[in-house]
Amino acid sequence: MLTITVEELIRLTALALRKSGASQPMALAAAKALVAADMEGLPTHGVSRTSLYAQHLREGRADGKAKPRIAKRSGATCLVDACGGLAFQASAIAVTEAVKRARRHGIAMSGVMNSHHFGAAAYHLTPVADAGFVGIAFSNAPSAINAWGGKKPLFGTNPIAAIFPRRNKSPIIVDLSLTEVVRGKIMLYAKEGKPIPVGWALDSEGKPTTDARVALAGSLAAVGGMKGTMLALIVEVVCCALTGAAFSFESDSYFAPGGKPRIGHSFIVINPDGLAGTEYYYSRLEVMIARMLAEEGVRLPGSRRHAAVTKARATGIEISESLHEELIQLSA
Amino acid sequence: MLTITVEELIRLTALALRKSGASQPMALAAAKALVAADMEGLPTHGVSRTSLYAQHLREGRADGKAKPRIAKRSGATCLVDACGGLAFQASAIAVTEAVKRARRHGIAMSGVMNSHHFGAAAYHLTPVADAGFVGIAFSNAPSAINAWGGKKPLFGTNPIAAIFPRRNKSPIIVDLSLTEVVRGKIMLYAKEGKPIPVGWALDSEGKPTTDARVALAGSLAAVGGMKGTMLALIVEVVCCALTGAAFSFESDSYFAPGGKPRIGHSFIVINPDGLAGTEYYYSRLEVMIARMLAEEGVRLPGSRRHAAVTKARATGIEISESLHEELIQLSA
Repeated sequence: MLTITVEELIRLTALALRKSGASQPMALAAAKALVAADMEGLPTHGVSRTSLYAQHLREGRADGKAKPRIAKRSGATCLVDACGGLAFQASAIAVTEAVKRARRHGIAMSGVMNSHHFGAAAYHLTPVADAGFVGIAFSNAPSAINAWGGKKPLFGTNPIAAIFPRRNKSPIIVDLSLTEVVRGKIMLYAKEGKPIPVGWALDSEGKPTTDARVALAGSLAAVGGMKGTMLALIVEVVCCALTGAAFSFESDSYFAPGGKPRIGHSFIVINPDGLAGTEYYYSRLEVMIARMLAEEGVRLPGSRRHAAVTKARATGIEISESLHEELIQLSA
Repeated sequence: MLTITVEELIRLTALALRKSGASQPMALAAAKALVAADMEGLPTHGVSRTSLYAQHLREGRADGKAKPRIAKRSGATCLVDACGGLAFQASAIAVTEAVKRARRHGIAMSGVMNSHHFGAAAYHLTPVADAGFVGIAFSNAPSAINAWGGKKPLFGTNPIAAIFPRRNKSPIIVDLSLTEVVRGKIMLYAKEGKPIPVGWALDSEGKPTTDARVALAGSLAAVGGMKGTMLALIVEVVCCALTGAAFSFESDSYFAPGGKPRIGHSFIVINPDGLAGTEYYYSRLEVMIARMLAEEGVRLPGSRRHAAVTKARATGIEISESLHEELIQLSA
């Protein structure tokens, strides 16, 4: 392992994406998002993804020259076309518009279509909390979860994130995907030849399996079984049928040859002033938090991320030497 | 069992609530909602609840004279005060306002505070689908689920429902609570002295238990473990901190002596015209549905409800003789 400053890791990652065909603003937006995940202690969504993004940029599965644009806006809604580029600029535009519209109307929603890997879902919501608003984010993804009773992956891992600002404190952050475990965990078991626990994945007949290799050819189990598949369906419709994005089953896996994913994201922003009021919201949220923290063993969602960010700012980010080497080679 | 017509069951249920102290409109709104659940094949949320509602009305835990009112409205948001009455009139007002505002602004949200048992969550969303809009409903409930790592119930069962209208067809309906199983199921095991499966509930130390009696003194397991508790937290903040409702941990169990629950509900209504457009939404939703139904064993969420309603309209509703007797006594 070696330690690298936040600034240097952003510079290196942006350069790697730039050399792979991304425009300067696209590369910088993606690099900041990936490094933010590393800072938050989420390395699976951090700069370890750079080589995949770079490969997609070179193969045209992500259009490095894309300039995301607002396709439609009126009232409390906005639709952004990512134009086949990486997800981060388009999502930032969508969130900016939603915050602006929620300030006026009390609630707003933005959709993003023609997009790519969402990264860590809650990342996009930071400006929502900064504005003092509540944010909810959804994304679809290449198919991973069966419809209930089915055999073939149909819905994506379909993450749901939410951010709840606090007065003078770091926000509560919820961020979860709708699978029981991430695919990478099963890949690790397959590599090591170990059996996976029941409940993680299904074989290609939709039956539970403990064989990691069989699982990788099958599908991921939805969190909580049927209820997880129902939540994945909600995310699918909200991110795709409403926005113009491709459904998860229309989108090629990131890990096999294919075309542009063209997936979608949705952001809902709520201004507490439209309901019981901002001061009321802040004070009542603290009542809930106090009750949670009164119990030993309970932590606030997001607290580990905030602690990790503070540490990363002070002492830098640890990455493996091989990952560092990979970034250097991509930047050359 | 005996068979009773829909109209007669509504009349009888409304009369039972009326005699227990509910105003005529409150009694009728609640009776229609309860009978709708029986029609949909959801007897746990049907007229079997009448005696509990009646008891709450007599004890003042639900105010039969309450007239729900709009506490605040502007732009795309609306806040309704149920004023301590049953949930159905207030929720109907909230949904009507949200539909009206979504028509103008593209998205809208209504909150309800000072409310009571939500009934079957998706019921409230019927007018949303009738308007051709997408609806999402949330409610909190007296505490049932621990915060992750905690020992005491803190969040409610916190149902999430969604409705997705189809062109000239019955809508897709998703309706789920965030517990692994309903409490009634564990009550049944306790009564029969049978052990419950691991994963349904926790003891009062927050540890998994297979003893149904111990489980009833402990808490219900969140669906999918930690992820279920995170979703319950989202619902809790959206239904309470934003609206003025009591948190689940501030609300007394329906099944023990206590005060008014004062819980909250939230409704988000999305007008597809604000995003990719209504015609686009309808046609793309059918693409997803066709893909789902192409697989043997997959059914559309809500399809059983629609079939049950058709049957109930044609042939009436079956209820037990003891339940019928109970309704007659309450109506006397």
